[in-house]
Amino acid sequence: MEERLVKDGERVDDLQYKGLKIIQNPEGFCFGVDAVLLSNFCEIRKNWRVIDLGTGTGIIPILLAGKTNAKEIIGVEIQEEVAEMASRSVKLNQLEGRVHVIHEDFNKVVDQLEPYSFDAVTSNPPYMNEGGGLVNPESAKAISRHEIKCTLEDVIRVASKLLKDRGHFYMVHRPQRLVDILCLCRQYKLEPKKIRFVHPNRNKKPNILLIQCVKYGRPELKFMDPLYVYNEDGTYTNEIHEIYGRDWGNREEVQ
Amino acid sequence: MEERLVKDGERVDDLQYKGLKIIQNPEGFCFGVDAVLLSNFCEIRKNWRVIDLGTGTGIIPILLAGKTNAKEIIGVEIQEEVAEMASRSVKLNQLEGRVHVIHEDFNKVVDQLEPYSFDAVTSNPPYMNEGGGLVNPESAKAISRHEIKCTLEDVIRVASKLLKDRGHFYMVHRPQRLVDILCLCRQYKLEPKKIRFVHPNRNKKPNILLIQCVKYGRPELKFMDPLYVYNEDGTYTNEIHEIYGRDWGNREEVQ
Repeated sequence: MEERLVKDGERVDDLQYKGLKIIQNPEGFCFGVDAVLLSNFCEIRKNWRVIDLGTGTGIIPILLAGKTNAKEIIGVEIQEEVAEMASRSVKLNQLEGRVHVIHEDFNKVVDQLEPYSFDAVTSNPPYMNEGGGLVNPESAKAISRHEIKCTLEDVIRVASKLLKDRGHFYMVHRPQRLVDILCLCRQYKLEPKKIRFVHPNRNKKPNILLIQCVKYGRPELKFMDPLYVYNEDGTYTNEIHEIYGRDWGNREEVQ
Repeated sequence: MEERLVKDGERVDDLQYKGLKIIQNPEGFCFGVDAVLLSNFCEIRKNWRVIDLGTGTGIIPILLAGKTNAKEIIGVEIQEEVAEMASRSVKLNQLEGRVHVIHEDFNKVVDQLEPYSFDAVTSNPPYMNEGGGLVNPESAKAISRHEIKCTLEDVIRVASKLLKDRGHFYMVHRPQRLVDILCLCRQYKLEPKKIRFVHPNRNKKPNILLIQCVKYGRPELKFMDPLYVYNEDGTYTNEIHEIYGRDWGNREEVQ
C-alpha cells in the first residue's frame, strides 16, 4: 500500500513512535522540530475534538492521533498539494477514522465549521511577519514560514472562534514575537496559562516558545522549566531524546 | 557624619561598589537582589534625567549614581519614614547634587513634575496583586510587596507620562505577571524591546524578569541570555559575583 500512496520525489519518514510514518517532499517543506515539540507539549484529553490550523504535512494531527485519545483531529491546510500529501499520510497510518485533512483557507473554514465546538486548537504557524520582498511568495516553503496567507492575528482569532469555553489553544512560535502573541491571545480571550522556552543549550537565549492558552481562563501564567536541546558536548539532551527518538534522521536542526 | 545620619535600629550596609553605602532598617524592608539586578540591567546614558518609582531605601538611585553618568536621579517614595531614611542615605554618600528623594505618591507626583521630561524611568514595584487579607496592610513590608498603594498599571501609566519620546523604562518583576506586563506596556506605548529572565539555576524555571521598554519603540523583542544565580554546587555563578561583589552579606536570598 505504501508504494501506491507515495509519489515521485516524495519520501516516507518513520516517526519513531508507535510505527507512525509521514510522507514528505524534500523539495517542498518538511516538518521541523517545532511541530514535534508542540505535539509533545499539548495536553489533549480523551474524546476531545482537536483542530490544527495550517497543518502542512499533517505531522501534528498524526502525532496527536498516536499520543492521545482524541476522538477527532482535523488538519486544515491552504496549499492543495500539501493537503493532498497530508491526506495520503493519514491513509498510510490508517488513521482515516480519526484524522481528517481539509484543503481550505482556515480564515474561510471558520465559517463552515460549527463555532465553539472544539476542545483544543493547535498551530505551528508561519513565524516571520515580513512577507514582502520574497523571491517566490507562492513557494511552499515561503507560505509555511512567512505570514503570506495568514497572520498571527488570524490564527489567534480563528482559534478563539472555534474553541469551546475553557478550550485549549496550543501554539509554537518564536520568542521575538512574544509581545504580539501574549497581547493578541488576551485580546481574543485566550488567556496564556503555561509557557515553555526552548533553548539551543544552557548558555543560550531561547529560540522557540511553546504556549498553552485557555479560553476565558483566569490570568495567571505558569512558567515551565526550560527545555535545552543540546548538551555542552553537542549531543542531544535526554529530554530531547525522549521526545524525539534516538534515530530520527530527517529533522530540521534547531538553529 | 555616619553616626549622625543613622538612627537607632538601623544599620549601614556597604554596597561593595565605589564605597557606596545604604541605610536599612531590618525591622522594615531591606532592598533585595531584584533592585541590584535592575540597576545592573539599566542602560543609562550621560546627562540623562532618571526617576525611580517606589524607590524604598533609595538603592536604585544610589547604585545608578555610582554606575552611570546620569545628571539627575529622582527617587519617589510614598512611605514617609522610608523616604526620610533614603534621603539620609543620599547624604551619607554625598550624592545630594545628583540624587533627590521625594516623599510623595507617584500617582500624584506625575502632575507636579513636567511630563515627557525624563530620559529613563526605573521601578522595582510590588509584585503581588492580591493585597486583600493581609495581617497589616500598612506595614512597610506589605506596602513594598503587595499592590496596596499602587498597581502595576499605575507604574506603567506614570512611567509613560514622564518619559520623553524614545525614553527608556526599566522594570524588575515576576514571570507570572508577564502577560499583564507586556500588554500594559504596549497599551501605554512603552514597547518591550529587551527581556532577561533570571533563573535560580540552570535546571529551574525563571523567578525574576528584567525588562527594557522604549517609548514609541518599534515592536521587536530581543531576548538576552538567561542569568543563572547559583551553580549546581550551590555557589553563586561568576556573573552574579560580578554584579554583586563577593562579600555582600545582607542581601535577600533569591527564592
